[in-house]
Amino acid sequence: MVGGSKKGQIGKVHRKAINLHGKAKIVCGAFSRNFNDTLDLGKELNLSEERLYKNYEEMAEQERSRPDKIDFVSIVTPNKTHYEISKKFLQCGINVMCEKPFTCSSQEAEKLRILAEKNDLLLGISYSFTGYSMIRYAREMIRRGEIGEVRFVNAQYLCDWMAKVPFRGKNKQQDWRSDPKLSGISNCVADIGSHVENLIYYLTELRIESLSARIDHFIEQDGLDDNASILVNYNNGARGIYWTSQVTIGHENNLNFGIYGTKGSIEWSRENANFLKVSTIEQPFSVVTRGNDHIDDYIKQDYVTPGGHTEGYIDAFGRIYDKFISAIIQQKNGVQSNKSDLEFKTAESGISGMIFIEKCIESATHEGVWVNI
Amino acid sequence: MVGGSKKGQIGKVHRKAINLHGKAKIVCGAFSRNFNDTLDLGKELNLSEERLYKNYEEMAEQERSRPDKIDFVSIVTPNKTHYEISKKFLQCGINVMCEKPFTCSSQEAEKLRILAEKNDLLLGISYSFTGYSMIRYAREMIRRGEIGEVRFVNAQYLCDWMAKVPFRGKNKQQDWRSDPKLSGISNCVADIGSHVENLIYYLTELRIESLSARIDHFIEQDGLDDNASILVNYNNGARGIYWTSQVTIGHENNLNFGIYGTKGSIEWSRENANFLKVSTIEQPFSVVTRGNDHIDDYIKQDYVTPGGHTEGYIDAFGRIYDKFISAIIQQKNGVQSNKSDLEFKTAESGISGMIFIEKCIESATHEGVWVNI
Amino acid sequence: MVGGSKKGQIGKVHRKAINLHGKAKIVCGAFSRNFNDTLDLGKELNLSEERLYKNYEEMAEQERSRPDKIDFVSIVTPNKTHYEISKKFLQCGINVMCEKPFTCSSQEAEKLRILAEKNDLLLGISYSFTGYSMIRYAREMIRRGEIGEVRFVNAQYLCDWMAKVPFRGKNKQQDWRSDPKLSGISNCVADIGSHVENLIYYLTELRIESLSARIDHFIEQDGLDDNASILVNYNNGARGIYWTSQVTIGHENNLNFGIYGTKGSIEWSRENANFLKVSTIEQPFSVVTRGNDHIDDYIKQDYVTPGGHTEGYIDAFGRIYDKFISAIIQQKNGVQSNKSDLEFKTAESGISGMIFIEKCIESATHEGVWVNI
Amino acid sequence: MVGGSKKGQIGKVHRKAINLHGKAKIVCGAFSRNFNDTLDLGKELNLSEERLYKNYEEMAEQERSRPDKIDFVSIVTPNKTHYEISKKFLQCGINVMCEKPFTCSSQEAEKLRILAEKNDLLLGISYSFTGYSMIRYAREMIRRGEIGEVRFVNAQYLCDWMAKVPFRGKNKQQDWRSDPKLSGISNCVADIGSHVENLIYYLTELRIESLSARIDHFIEQDGLDDNASILVNYNNGARGIYWTSQVTIGHENNLNFGIYGTKGSIEWSRENANFLKVSTIEQPFSVVTRGNDHIDDYIKQDYVTPGGHTEGYIDAFGRIYDKFISAIIQQKNGVQSNKSDLEFKTAESGISGMIFIEKCIESATHEGVWVNI
Repeated sequence: MVGGSKKGQIGKVHRKAINLHGKAKIVCGAFSRNFNDTLDLGKELNLSEERLYKNYEEMAEQERSRPDKIDFVSIVTPNKTHYEISKKFLQCGINVMCEKPFTCSSQEAEKLRILAEKNDLLLGISYSFTGYSMIRYAREMIRRGEIGEVRFVNAQYLCDWMAKVPFRGKNKQQDWRSDPKLSGISNCVADIGSHVENLIYYLTELRIESLSARIDHFIEQDGLDDNASILVNYNNGARGIYWTSQVTIGHENNLNFGIYGTKGSIEWSRENANFLKVSTIEQPFSVVTRGNDHIDDYIKQDYVTPGGHTEGYIDAFGRIYDKFISAIIQQKNGVQSNKSDLEFKTAESGISGMIFIEKCIESATHEGVWVNI
Repeated sequence: MVGGSKKGQIGKVHRKAINLHGKAKIVCGAFSRNFNDTLDLGKELNLSEERLYKNYEEMAEQERSRPDKIDFVSIVTPNKTHYEISKKFLQCGINVMCEKPFTCSSQEAEKLRILAEKNDLLLGISYSFTGYSMIRYAREMIRRGEIGEVRFVNAQYLCDWMAKVPFRGKNKQQDWRSDPKLSGISNCVADIGSHVENLIYYLTELRIESLSARIDHFIEQDGLDDNASILVNYNNGARGIYWTSQVTIGHENNLNFGIYGTKGSIEWSRENANFLKVSTIEQPFSVVTRGNDHIDDYIKQDYVTPGGHTEGYIDAFGRIYDKFISAIIQQKNGVQSNKSDLEFKTAESGISGMIFIEKCIESATHEGVWVNI
Repeated sequence: MVGGSKKGQIGKVHRKAINLHGKAKIVCGAFSRNFNDTLDLGKELNLSEERLYKNYEEMAEQERSRPDKIDFVSIVTPNKTHYEISKKFLQCGINVMCEKPFTCSSQEAEKLRILAEKNDLLLGISYSFTGYSMIRYAREMIRRGEIGEVRFVNAQYLCDWMAKVPFRGKNKQQDWRSDPKLSGISNCVADIGSHVENLIYYLTELRIESLSARIDHFIEQDGLDDNASILVNYNNGARGIYWTSQVTIGHENNLNFGIYGTKGSIEWSRENANFLKVSTIEQPFSVVTRGNDHIDDYIKQDYVTPGGHTEGYIDAFGRIYDKFISAIIQQKNGVQSNKSDLEFKTAESGISGMIFIEKCIESATHEGVWVNI
Repeated sequence: MVGGSKKGQIGKVHRKAINLHGKAKIVCGAFSRNFNDTLDLGKELNLSEERLYKNYEEMAEQERSRPDKIDFVSIVTPNKTHYEISKKFLQCGINVMCEKPFTCSSQEAEKLRILAEKNDLLLGISYSFTGYSMIRYAREMIRRGEIGEVRFVNAQYLCDWMAKVPFRGKNKQQDWRSDPKLSGISNCVADIGSHVENLIYYLTELRIESLSARIDHFIEQDGLDDNASILVNYNNGARGIYWTSQVTIGHENNLNFGIYGTKGSIEWSRENANFLKVSTIEQPFSVVTRGNDHIDDYIKQDYVTPGGHTEGYIDAFGRIYDKFISAIIQQKNGVQSNKSDLEFKTAESGISGMIFIEKCIESATHEGVWVNI
């Protein structure tokens, strides 16, 4: 693992997600640019000191030449560094699971995709929300045509941590996310807009053809964006509104969506992640839960938490890692995975996410002009 | 009452709303262009047959010359006729309560405003949602600065009756609403967008400075709009998204909003009209109900339904009429109402609504270009 | 109307409920034992001063001899007086709508039933909750066997006004409800337990065969009950728990129930009165709303509020009065109503309620021994 | 691990819960009485074949003599076997984590407690619900007196799997749970009533002084109970209702409670495990989430899932194991744990649970007579 020291939250989540299925374990790390922090966490995790590294270059170089070298690296650093770190590990022949947003430009993303392909390595992006069972079931319903042809999508990712001003210096994550030197061209669209773009594509398989965006800087007038309103047109003629915000007081990672088709609709919210509201024309709406018998077997088989109990973020996150690790195990066993079978998000998703971010910023800097993708 | 025969729903609601407070009663009507329908309903309502009229012109003319002439007329006909009917009654010296949208153009709306003013008559628009107690309390909270300066507004009005295709000929209201000859330049924006525009202004007192709109025609490609996505910029720098739709299967008059300020937020939905979600920074969110002791006295005094029981649409609608009728009683008693004291929506709101509709259509027909208001 | 001065809330609700349908109007009253209060309210209601009475006896006597005598009286006084007042009006040949609990003993209740029958008068009890459309629909579902045979009922009526101590002298209703001289043998069971007993019988048509009750006096150790836990056995072998409380902080008239059958279940709460949760075995649960097309026509025809808008307490209350008033109109037209057709609660319900209250107190005073009904 | 083959669900959950924190790993097992099943699962888990055992006796005997013997055993077999298996491992000097209900009688439970104490071993009961962060916070609130003195508790555990008749032979868990030879004297009270008893004690620290129970056999007239209504009196004078059911169609592990005190109340439901409804007198109710800043640090430090994301069953379950495993690590490091510091449920809770079950059955078989505890 690169990044993920005890000062942030996200490293801890990745580590538990890796542990959950008992198929992989963390053996080395460069958790921080401050080596003491790395040593400190390494000790807590019972890692061998010789596999605690000062920086990612050292880690990549030394691990590549070990007989027991790592099977994959998990990269949980600020956005700006994703590209260089991913590149390094791919060059050293090590599979990569990278946090989103994938890179800071679509060109970088494309370069990584090519590099991984050339070296025959797996390159995953940890879009965690696609791991929720109800999301997987929603996708099946849409695929089966249960809501008909999609007409409209309304999707939001709302949080409020940027509204807690003044925050500079109080919270490590907040500091870097709002800093263009570490975050890239966007804060809000990149951090949470990318989840929305990915999730809706995952669910509907609709491509965005054009978009019009308005981005706002409520907290720091001259800093990065903290709120974005994006109108999108899809390739099948459907329309959508994406709204992402870090200043909507009262919301905590409230990723939610409604997908409205010709025959019905599906609605979901992270706040009630175990329920799926399903409406069909002229019927009472119904609420699907993980405990329902008719959930597809391939989804049920992946349950960690029994249907009827509460599935959480760690189940979803663990599922992403489980799919990635299982693909690595197959790879090690010489089984060639068909790309379309991979149940985790790959470089293609990362590239698509970067283009989305770039186009949003482009539209917004030209008064919301519609731009094609 | 003009319009409101037994074939539609809305006339019945108006009549009950008028009854509720026992201060006015219906004495005459031209309920339908089909006189038999008027006679039929008139009989049911125990009205004297001589006051059942063949059309609105006859009603206005005859009532004006009666010693016991009506104090006001309630107009619940299709949009396209609002202007002529309102004009006629105002010319005959009769106060008017008109359904929204007020007219079919802002010029017409302005003409009516001037006519009413010249004749010293009351001209109300029945924007029913502003009558809910929790809406009235939300407005007080915002006025008192409890959520700070407003930064963002997200407001939606979602329904699904247009998704029930093919509907032509099956439902009277559906037929006229989607027909430009009866509805004017817009169906969806005019019918429900106008509620959103009015409600958010009522709550925040923020003026829309510019907007960018995309309107959709999902059901009838060459008919009127049935879905609209509108980005708005307010005069204080705040931003907003309005989304109104008649094709979102699973929603029934789901008017809902979130208003996000620098200190907190307020969220409400018609589906849970008796609850107001209030969030303030770094606190658990709270839910205000009508039963809470700290609700302002002037709001509590207007309760029909005791706090702790369920207030509904008829309470809200009845309140609008009660305020209108009370103003008429004052007028009759020679008390001059100060315009700013009127607690129902007047021609000014109607004009503002018409401008909003016109500008949305203008923007949408030019690829969502931002237009100033 | 007897009782219902401006100092309490309930009189106002009754008056609006009577107004709503425009079929009856209030013409006289003895609103208070303080005649000034009666005069005051009478003036506000535009009543003729000669029909404002010093007490109920005077009202009954004088009205009986008027050519335009009232068609019915509405009694909204404290429990202890219901019997005498109802008796007086029935003796004077006037129909009666009485607040619940009907009387202070089942014998009194039975006497009134006989008196009304003898004089061929209508005697209604204003159990308001049975007027909600979703309650009426729930009953239809159960009748049609959609949840199979009922096995278990869980019903609660929770409020918290008694928890606001010390309250004596602060609130008129609170004072008399907790005073045995005005309330009778029970406060909590009588006031809200009676609603539960009535509502569940209305829905299921199951008779309670035996019960075991524990009653509590949390606020005033030596006063009337403010909380009750009641186990009931029904005549079909089904079982139930009724819990009613006036000290559950955070609840306001939260009447709610779940009815569980062999094929499915129905759940409802006053807090979300427009929704009915319906579960059937091995299916996602669904939520029926008043806007659903398949609601029975006889229920839809009684909507005041269109499906898709919020129906409230006043719709429910108004419906009870409307059914009562319609029966009186039929009576005046010489149409004989079949008792089983009456869609309001009659003396039989009042008697059943009184027996329930008496048996609860009997069981509770003997350590919860099971008593037969 | 003893029990927990692939045919059931619960073993899988225990294994993931053990994995989650990366502090322990599964090394041996007797997962089934069918040795092939044990071999099959052992292979999947990459266990050494020599540590897959034919039965628990073999496992206990052989493990006790290995230099790398297990630190603890997890027992996830049917109730009836808990006692013998626990006894065996304790006798072999191995710490035990046992599923609830602990044993089949309070005497057995007491014997195990003494045995563990004598051998200085840790003996935990996996009451998983006490691991939810919001439950831990609720307990803190009650301890701090935020709702005042507790007056009333309403707690339910509702599920519907027994309502899916005929089920015999279709589902392994269902088969044994309803079979007295494997389940003991009770099915419903033992399986889910024990959770309620434990959770409410955990939260309130109130002891049940006496209880009156009615148990039902809706599915199998002559089988074990599937529904129970229990009135309880606590040692501080508070009262409670516990209702547990396996036939309430529409509910899945819906453990929920309301705790009502003199100053406020706390309500929680497994279905919305990340939210805690908190009401205080004369205030709007508020909803506490894990993301709130004021949650106690010791609770936040144990978060696996960051505040603002969805915590699930596996977080709760993992937390119980983490506390147990941490105590074992301390034990191995020679640190003596103070019993009151243990943050998992010990034999005392198991004994208390067994007494509760026995007293419920005793009361129910004597027509609900109140029995002292």
